[in-house]
Amino acid sequence: MKNIFIIGCGLLGSSLLRRIHKKKLCPKIFVYEKSKKNIRKIKKLKLPGVIVKKPEDAVRQSELIIFCTPMSEYKKVIININSHLRSNHIITDVGSSKLMSIKMIKKNLKKNISWTSSHPITGSEVSGPENGKQSLFENKWCVLIKEKRSKIKHIKFLNSFWRKMGSKTVLMSAEKHDKIFSITSHLPHLIAYNLVKSAQDFEKMQKYDLLKFSAGGLRDFSRIAASNEIMWRDIFFDNKKNISRAINLFIKNLNSFQKDISTKSNKSILKKLIQTKKVRSKIIQLKLDTNKPDFGRN
Amino acid sequence: MKNIFIIGCGLLGSSLLRRIHKKKLCPKIFVYEKSKKNIRKIKKLKLPGVIVKKPEDAVRQSELIIFCTPMSEYKKVIININSHLRSNHIITDVGSSKLMSIKMIKKNLKKNISWTSSHPITGSEVSGPENGKQSLFENKWCVLIKEKRSKIKHIKFLNSFWRKMGSKTVLMSAEKHDKIFSITSHLPHLIAYNLVKSAQDFEKMQKYDLLKFSAGGLRDFSRIAASNEIMWRDIFFDNKKNISRAINLFIKNLNSFQKDISTKSNKSILKKLIQTKKVRSKIIQLKLDTNKPDFGRN
Repeated sequence: MKNIFIIGCGLLGSSLLRRIHKKKLCPKIFVYEKSKKNIRKIKKLKLPGVIVKKPEDAVRQSELIIFCTPMSEYKKVIININSHLRSNHIITDVGSSKLMSIKMIKKNLKKNISWTSSHPITGSEVSGPENGKQSLFENKWCVLIKEKRSKIKHIKFLNSFWRKMGSKTVLMSAEKHDKIFSITSHLPHLIAYNLVKSAQDFEKMQKYDLLKFSAGGLRDFSRIAASNEIMWRDIFFDNKKNISRAINLFIKNLNSFQKDISTKSNKSILKKLIQTKKVRSKIIQLKLDTNKPDFGRN
Repeated sequence: MKNIFIIGCGLLGSSLLRRIHKKKLCPKIFVYEKSKKNIRKIKKLKLPGVIVKKPEDAVRQSELIIFCTPMSEYKKVIININSHLRSNHIITDVGSSKLMSIKMIKKNLKKNISWTSSHPITGSEVSGPENGKQSLFENKWCVLIKEKRSKIKHIKFLNSFWRKMGSKTVLMSAEKHDKIFSITSHLPHLIAYNLVKSAQDFEKMQKYDLLKFSAGGLRDFSRIAASNEIMWRDIFFDNKKNISRAINLFIKNLNSFQKDISTKSNKSILKKLIQTKKVRSKIIQLKLDTNKPDFGRN
């Protein structure tokens, strides 16, 4: 493989950087990072790669370009690198929402340039290059977006690339992707943020010091709700139609739970509480989590 | 201390049993367990203690009686042991909701008998005697409910008992307890159940095989939603007024989030997403969770 260019060196970008370096995939890895604070961290951590001052500086020398910035940064970078792009460039990104971002990319990207979107299903509540690790993608799914105009050659190239990152790959349309992840990822994060916000409001109203009693459930949500706010704003805005539908379904079900509780409908509530266990069993069967009981982290 | 009687030997009861035995707190520990399946497990595990066939069999010989059954079982047991109770018995329970259960207890308990309610803030998504452990209460809060009629002697006794279990103790009114835990524990569990239910509904509607992509958030909720259904039905019914209020606050906030998303209100949504991080920092400061990043359990 020729050189690789990573644009945006936070949690995901720096993890790719570490992995590509470890696997010796290419002669040079270029890195562009907007934040001066992050650049200082990258230098202090002695991460591999050549840091470039402007994104346009590394495009011509690279075969593969990977966008790892928040999705709201794509447009600006595309405009800056457009004139340097050629049709044999393989371009991808790691954004968590696809339909709207692909629309925006098509609108702004120079003609005859192809972009093949990726979404590695991995991450953490922490961000920044100091938290990246080369094993971040290992045994995780990476979704590759297949569209009518996708270049099979580029999909094959990226399929092989993500497998070298340690991921399992799957092809999907942008539409299906955004629907699935609105439920399995975007809604859970929104719900976690919303629960923590509600606890804060309650604490203010009641003037209770309640966080010290958060071990019974709130604690686990607070971890998810500590995720990067720019990334999540971008995802919520980008996938707003599916997320709004997911919120409606969620509220409909919550109203039904509330009714069961207020009327003490034994059968109806037990049916709900038992059914959800099936999901847990499937998730453990799929080896997406261990069946080791969780008693809180110490 | 004289003998201790544990009524209900599931996750919490069996953990108390193990801890009391390890600390050699009393000559005899009696255990009553309704489920034959659990009794077989207790015997197979060779747990300490004397299993009695009826709860009334061990009351007279015990100083401390601890109810560890689901709350919906209390009444039946109280009626069975009532005639054996004396005013010097110290009686407590580990139920997660207090106002309604204390009302029911007062109504059914023999006159001049005192009951001092406890709530150790611990547990797991798993249940049963096979999952108990002697360290379950270590460094966890245990709330002791103080009412007008509470016997100071019994509170002091239980305070010392829970400290021997490894817990930190705090006194609280039943009213305050139920308000606090409606937000920090009961709502989070309900929300987790509701999210998993919504994912199931969505899967049926769309006919997508989405669980394999659950690592982005749904997985963590599915763990919480695998908790014991009888215990949670009892809690939801018992604390229904506070939980209903908490649901209303939650839905109000979720509608506000939905509005931010559909109108792309940048300032408003960022304010929400940033504010919630403060809760996380406080929880880590309070040492209720580690600041070690979570990348999923492998």
